[in-house]
Amino acid sequence: MANKAITSRDVDFGKWYTDIVKAAHLADYSNVKGCTVFEPNGYAIWEKMQQVLDGMYKETGHKNVYMPLLIPENLMEKEGELINGFAPEVAWVTIGGQKELEERMCIRPTSETLFSDYYASKVKSYRDLPLKYNQWCNVMRWEKETRPFLRSREFLWQEGHTVHATSEEAEKETRDMLETYKTFFEDYLAIPVITGKKTEKEKFAGAEYTLTVEALMYNGVSLQSATSHYFGQKFSRAYDIKFLNKNNELEYAYQTSWGSTTRMIGALIMVHSDDDGLVLPPKIAPNQVVIIPIGNNDKVNSFVSSTYDKLTESGVSVYIDNSDKSPGFKFAEAEVNGIPVRLEIGERDLAKGILTIARRDTKEKMEISKDIDIVEYVKELLNTIQSDMYNRALKRRCKQTYECHHLREVEDIMNNHPGFVKAMWCGNPDCELKMKEIHGTKSRCILEEEQPIDDKCIVCGNKAEHLVIWGIQY
Amino acid sequence: MANKAITSRDVDFGKWYTDIVKAAHLADYSNVKGCTVFEPNGYAIWEKMQQVLDGMYKETGHKNVYMPLLIPENLMEKEGELINGFAPEVAWVTIGGQKELEERMCIRPTSETLFSDYYASKVKSYRDLPLKYNQWCNVMRWEKETRPFLRSREFLWQEGHTVHATSEEAEKETRDMLETYKTFFEDYLAIPVITGKKTEKEKFAGAEYTLTVEALMYNGVSLQSATSHYFGQKFSRAYDIKFLNKNNELEYAYQTSWGSTTRMIGALIMVHSDDDGLVLPPKIAPNQVVIIPIGNNDKVNSFVSSTYDKLTESGVSVYIDNSDKSPGFKFAEAEVNGIPVRLEIGERDLAKGILTIARRDTKEKMEISKDIDIVEYVKELLNTIQSDMYNRALKRRCKQTYECHHLREVEDIMNNHPGFVKAMWCGNPDCELKMKEIHGTKSRCILEEEQPIDDKCIVCGNKAEHLVIWGIQY
Repeated sequence: MANKAITSRDVDFGKWYTDIVKAAHLADYSNVKGCTVFEPNGYAIWEKMQQVLDGMYKETGHKNVYMPLLIPENLMEKEGELINGFAPEVAWVTIGGQKELEERMCIRPTSETLFSDYYASKVKSYRDLPLKYNQWCNVMRWEKETRPFLRSREFLWQEGHTVHATSEEAEKETRDMLETYKTFFEDYLAIPVITGKKTEKEKFAGAEYTLTVEALMYNGVSLQSATSHYFGQKFSRAYDIKFLNKNNELEYAYQTSWGSTTRMIGALIMVHSDDDGLVLPPKIAPNQVVIIPIGNNDKVNSFVSSTYDKLTESGVSVYIDNSDKSPGFKFAEAEVNGIPVRLEIGERDLAKGILTIARRDTKEKMEISKDIDIVEYVKELLNTIQSDMYNRALKRRCKQTYECHHLREVEDIMNNHPGFVKAMWCGNPDCELKMKEIHGTKSRCILEEEQPIDDKCIVCGNKAEHLVIWGIQY
Repeated sequence: MANKAITSRDVDFGKWYTDIVKAAHLADYSNVKGCTVFEPNGYAIWEKMQQVLDGMYKETGHKNVYMPLLIPENLMEKEGELINGFAPEVAWVTIGGQKELEERMCIRPTSETLFSDYYASKVKSYRDLPLKYNQWCNVMRWEKETRPFLRSREFLWQEGHTVHATSEEAEKETRDMLETYKTFFEDYLAIPVITGKKTEKEKFAGAEYTLTVEALMYNGVSLQSATSHYFGQKFSRAYDIKFLNKNNELEYAYQTSWGSTTRMIGALIMVHSDDDGLVLPPKIAPNQVVIIPIGNNDKVNSFVSSTYDKLTESGVSVYIDNSDKSPGFKFAEAEVNGIPVRLEIGERDLAKGILTIARRDTKEKMEISKDIDIVEYVKELLNTIQSDMYNRALKRRCKQTYECHHLREVEDIMNNHPGFVKAMWCGNPDCELKMKEIHGTKSRCILEEEQPIDDKCIVCGNKAEHLVIWGIQY
């Protein structure tokens, strides 16, 4: 029986999405236009994501810092492509302390500017390099159409910014961080991703090139899920970041940046959830197991608390739902909130020597002996759920990925059952514009390592240069 | 031998403070006026503070959320005292997406407004209560004079906001959070604090009353270090937060808020550090131990790495300084950065069967047998350092706390050797203004639990109502 508060995803995917966000108490609209309130369930997922990613960054030698929120206009303007890219969507502070400011300042849409300005004052010699910094913060982009987690005027993210003495090292960093994102998506979020290089048209303003992690949602729409940029010397020239290299010559430094945002929560929802609510992969679920006592007597209570203790001690995150609601209500609540495993401990079951355990992803219910090694059983089940969720998402994505050789095939796909389209491209941005006429289909990324599937550009028929993944985007 | 980059704190305390901030790479000035860059060493202390406080909040049933950065003017104005208090020091966004906004929005100076607006839409019944939420975020107050960590236009903080069904429960929350702060300051930061109630004049704009944690710095200046506010029904009336109580009657809810900021890093510096740099209490130090290898041979290296492994496994945070700098340089660097314990492992020492271990707080050097149980030894040493640091700070504060019965005594103290002054007060704000003429001496808080020391107000001589702690403030 589907949750009545949730529209079916096959009926109206957009409505289904916002219903899930609301029903699982992830976020709420606020009276600040275009901004959302992150509610406890949503913010807890973000904290879990932060914890995992932060650990990965620190393990690879990155350090956290914090740069100012505001960027003075003259500082922002130093790198021309960046300001051109972001000018239409920044918010400007013009009054501070009841006075008109001499120079207006924008709320950071991204912080290349401030990091570069800081690095210019710190980097003197190759001995100071590399500097590998990251920050967790809020940013603002004045979007017109907004949607919780996917696109909002303010969002939370991490932005890594690094400086290196050689282009090789900086390019390696750019690729390493792409790999980190890929690992995070696949191993933790259970979301298979495609990685590759953005076209010139789609790259980040100010980057030499942009690498990207692209995922496919349940409805076949693609989501740019994290990006890693190689800047070469573009910012170091604009902000004057020079260092003495090993040959004692002044050289402009090489930079990267890479970011991932609260949009990842949107990806989690759109890949895994169903008509009954949220479905969370165990490795990112703030609560992995809920124990629901049925009946209230000493036997039940003592079994509940000893099970809780055992699981907690072994590192499983578990809570007991001891509220005065009915068991049925508690089941539905755990379901809509996406708790991976539900453990029901009841008087009658105990008398029969069993417990009931339910998987959120498949909704299977199993009866297990109450004398089982519960820690081992639950841990194995959590692992199974994690890999099953990944495999299901991968299978779906494979089914929704098409090789095309003619534009009419792309039209047919995007009209009837959208997904990823693999097709050859000549490298001409005009062909990208032409493709965009098909429901806004854009190049997602250039697949650098796969074999060509044709020798002609799918749009113009000229010699093909790249195999590209195309898709309709969020 | 004192660090040459650092002015002596007895010569010029203000200069000493900024020298420490710079030399220990805690923060740097930025090209954004009044805002600082939190560098890795400074941000790591903040992360450690967050980790400890966040754990304490969650253990007591609080949940993290995230509210928008911007507050529309009409929403901000609903509670009159709050907007009056903050109006002179907010920053206004007037342009977004290249258009003049219809209604300007301020960058949050604090978020009572947004939490209350959110609660108004969520709270329906006493069954929804309490809601105990907290957020970690940046806020902005357009200060004129700024100083790293102590006062800057943008700072980082946590702000807890709770709603309750009864005044008793909300008042208990207000006191409980004050106690949490006291515990954190004393047990983790090793800073003794005085707690009490702010006078009407000094309380938070919009609060029924404000409880505060006050600490005394090395130079006798006091620092308001964290505050906890009881709002009663002030905000619930302004924002219409009503609920059906147990008698099925509509009632305005009872609220609290409480906050602590990156200012705590400033307190750490000004209480514990010395002319050689930062001194960090072990429980808040991101790195508790540094191992410095002296010489580079197999014996040294294998002893270093086995020691590192043992300490790490036992939960001590330790790093090895393997850089190509000289040992003397490494010692000085560990010293200026405030690493609590330095372990020197050298070839000649090992041949003699010893290691050298140095305490940062006292600068004592000890020779210990290389066969000692190093984990137990280091853990005990860290505990000793933690409690010694607290006791030294407490002893100094006691010495710098004076009981006064006449204004001329206060003048003498504040002129020559400032500190906390205990004196009786009649309750009249005019007497507070009179006291302020003495170097800006202000009431820090009313001591609610101590016995009166006089029956007359120290200023006007009328009947005394309260025993008050007074001080010059940051």
